[in-house]
Amino acid sequence: MLAQRLIERKRDGGRLSAPEWEALAHAFTSGSMTEYQMAAFLMAAFIRGLDRDEVGALTQTMLDSGQSLDLSHLAAGRIDKHSTGGVGDKVSLILAPLVTSLGLVVPMMSGRGLGHTGGTLDKLESISGFQTRLSLEQARRQLEDIGCALIGQSEEIAPMDRKLYALRDATCTVESIPLIAASIMSKKLAEGLTGLVLDIKRGSGSFIPDFDRGVELSRLMIDLGEAHGCPVVALMTAMDRPLGRACGNALEVEEAIHALRGEGPPDLMQVTYALGAEMLVLGGVAANTDQARRKMEVAISSGRAAEMFQRIIAAQGGDANVVEDPSRLPQAREVEIYTAPRAGVIARVEPRAVGRGIIALGGGRTRMEDAIDPSVGFVIRARPGDVVRVGEPLATIFSRDEAGIAAGMAALTDAFVIAEEAEPPLPLVSHRVTKAGVEPYEAEPWVRTSEFPVFVEPR
Amino acid sequence: MLAQRLIERKRDGGRLSAPEWEALAHAFTSGSMTEYQMAAFLMAAFIRGLDRDEVGALTQTMLDSGQSLDLSHLAAGRIDKHSTGGVGDKVSLILAPLVTSLGLVVPMMSGRGLGHTGGTLDKLESISGFQTRLSLEQARRQLEDIGCALIGQSEEIAPMDRKLYALRDATCTVESIPLIAASIMSKKLAEGLTGLVLDIKRGSGSFIPDFDRGVELSRLMIDLGEAHGCPVVALMTAMDRPLGRACGNALEVEEAIHALRGEGPPDLMQVTYALGAEMLVLGGVAANTDQARRKMEVAISSGRAAEMFQRIIAAQGGDANVVEDPSRLPQAREVEIYTAPRAGVIARVEPRAVGRGIIALGGGRTRMEDAIDPSVGFVIRARPGDVVRVGEPLATIFSRDEAGIAAGMAALTDAFVIAEEAEPPLPLVSHRVTKAGVEPYEAEPWVRTSEFPVFVEPR
Repeated sequence: MLAQRLIERKRDGGRLSAPEWEALAHAFTSGSMTEYQMAAFLMAAFIRGLDRDEVGALTQTMLDSGQSLDLSHLAAGRIDKHSTGGVGDKVSLILAPLVTSLGLVVPMMSGRGLGHTGGTLDKLESISGFQTRLSLEQARRQLEDIGCALIGQSEEIAPMDRKLYALRDATCTVESIPLIAASIMSKKLAEGLTGLVLDIKRGSGSFIPDFDRGVELSRLMIDLGEAHGCPVVALMTAMDRPLGRACGNALEVEEAIHALRGEGPPDLMQVTYALGAEMLVLGGVAANTDQARRKMEVAISSGRAAEMFQRIIAAQGGDANVVEDPSRLPQAREVEIYTAPRAGVIARVEPRAVGRGIIALGGGRTRMEDAIDPSVGFVIRARPGDVVRVGEPLATIFSRDEAGIAAGMAALTDAFVIAEEAEPPLPLVSHRVTKAGVEPYEAEPWVRTSEFPVFVEPR
Repeated sequence: MLAQRLIERKRDGGRLSAPEWEALAHAFTSGSMTEYQMAAFLMAAFIRGLDRDEVGALTQTMLDSGQSLDLSHLAAGRIDKHSTGGVGDKVSLILAPLVTSLGLVVPMMSGRGLGHTGGTLDKLESISGFQTRLSLEQARRQLEDIGCALIGQSEEIAPMDRKLYALRDATCTVESIPLIAASIMSKKLAEGLTGLVLDIKRGSGSFIPDFDRGVELSRLMIDLGEAHGCPVVALMTAMDRPLGRACGNALEVEEAIHALRGEGPPDLMQVTYALGAEMLVLGGVAANTDQARRKMEVAISSGRAAEMFQRIIAAQGGDANVVEDPSRLPQAREVEIYTAPRAGVIARVEPRAVGRGIIALGGGRTRMEDAIDPSVGFVIRARPGDVVRVGEPLATIFSRDEAGIAAGMAALTDAFVIAEEAEPPLPLVSHRVTKAGVEPYEAEPWVRTSEFPVFVEPR
């Protein structure tokens, strides 16, 4: 009867008090509220929305449903980064070892591929032997030991969020700003952080393409963090085209390794450095973003960042030699070049089409239980604004078989829009959101693409 | 994937085409769409609404999910009555034998008690041996034989509606005008009717208290009927107080028997005659409502209506002697009078409080699997507008034990509002809705309460 009273209230646009959110969670966990009742509630919440207090109460309820990492005995700043997801977004693979090598503690909990976007766990698991299923106790020990753990959401962390998320995924109630904010923050707050940096993607390939909704999400998460003593800074970044060149699990690990060696593509490095600078400042390792940038450059040029990646891989049972020799990563059997079908300007490279192409190649899931092939994917060479001739190579397709090549060709035909002229793409990093408000992001000289060193392409 | 596409569409306020409603039903029936997905869809449909074409497509889909009664070989008009539900509403028990005795064929499919309201099936089953679970084939034979069958929704009729209804009941998505209209009409159209009369209750005890929404529901069902060649007429009747005196299963059967013998309470008879007149005119048995009324009076005074009730009871395995001797109905062990706690005017007799009181006494359900005690309930003597003294009897409580008496007392304390003055209650029958529109209902002389013959109270 309680469940029905609360469903009815939310259905009619009312609000739940903090004790009612708790009672709802208890009813669901104990089974007195069924999955279909929760599904109806979630749809009502999706359509009617939650106010700030409700988001706070739901976050707390989900956080309380599990355990938290207690890292308060560590002196170093404990900082994580969270991205709302995109295509070619391998920033976490670079950032985690990079900022850890500079003295931060990084308890990074990631997810799997979702919809058209890739997931950090899937990417890491393309490294032979790499274990992402660590218990909280194992993660705590590894964090004490080397300062970083790259893990999945264990059963111990916010189990209520896991259950709700699975239901939301099946019932089209994922893309709700309040539900997203509560879901992310319940997990992040369980990591025992002293600071959090958000990468809020915007543009056609983002789950939240709209700028204003991205800002709304940022501000909600900033508030939730503040309420728990965890400062949060968000950067708005571009997802109107894939980030970097590599799209696909092993290919992205390879590109991340190149990046850690100082050979990453400029757009990827710009976003990585921008986010890393915020992490280092939040964690007290750098006084300002300029100092942070110089520290990161040194960490990369000295090899310390790459070495830290090796240590993390080894600690989690993976083949650390991939950092020296990326050819040890799974290799696709079939490789084919995709060329421009007509002359013109690249007007768009649609991330969703690329992401769906990876799924078609077998490198992503349509159902959670699907196995994925880590070797497949694309290396996207052409960027929006490039002038191309007929037959000019635009991308490489990596597939396990001939059928995959055909599927990849079809996906890229959707992805590349060649026209007479092109609108400028979104700025890579456009805004910075803090509790003080939204400010335009000022690109510093070192992130100007034209000045960036030559980078190495995967394969 | 189809289910998710359709959930998403409805979530965002879009519409489904007729083939999409079919596909949705197929996905649900085949199990590829889960119960929680359907629950989310229903909540989206509840909040976003359905347009007329969608209601038509959903009705057709649910109708097509089962079988229909083919009674086209019968010459007589096949007319049913449907009420949106209330407290003390035993009209079906009187109307079915009454209009059948005048030559109509009445394939009446009813439901069980729902929320605070009673259900015709539960009332009928208080007659020893009465079977409401007839197959369509059995119902068809009984209709050919005696012209009436009083049955529940069998597995053969609109199974899709049954499944959806159970889910709506658990997920607070019942009270949606389009979903209600589709649910009712999918079942009524399966009865093979040539006409349908609706009793749309309004006032605080109705599921749809609001007049305008009641009219909206009427018009939607009138349209659905017309589209299937079944003319529909609706009367708007009062449910701001219980109808008649008896509230509770066996008590209501007893009052219905009194009514069939010409000894029913005036308000009950007014509503019964008004609905019966529409049925007889729709069925071609009477040229107008005035002639219909005279025919009904004769059917009752001659004993033919009561005799028809005996035939129906006997045909369905029940103890037909209850019509001669209502004391054969289940009798409550404990009987207690509820008296006025203060002097004043009866301002309200709240049907919801009375209905909840019946449930508290064990005469209704809180879960579908609950067994009910048919003997319990109330006889409500005082009516809105009555001037009462302290200690004056207002109602009788019928219970199986002392605890029930206390619960009944508490319910009646909620139900009776005694004040200094009273607003006039709603007119018993206020409006008539047809495809031509809404018109005020003109009470004919014979339904004026003051002129009505003395009636017999149950017990």
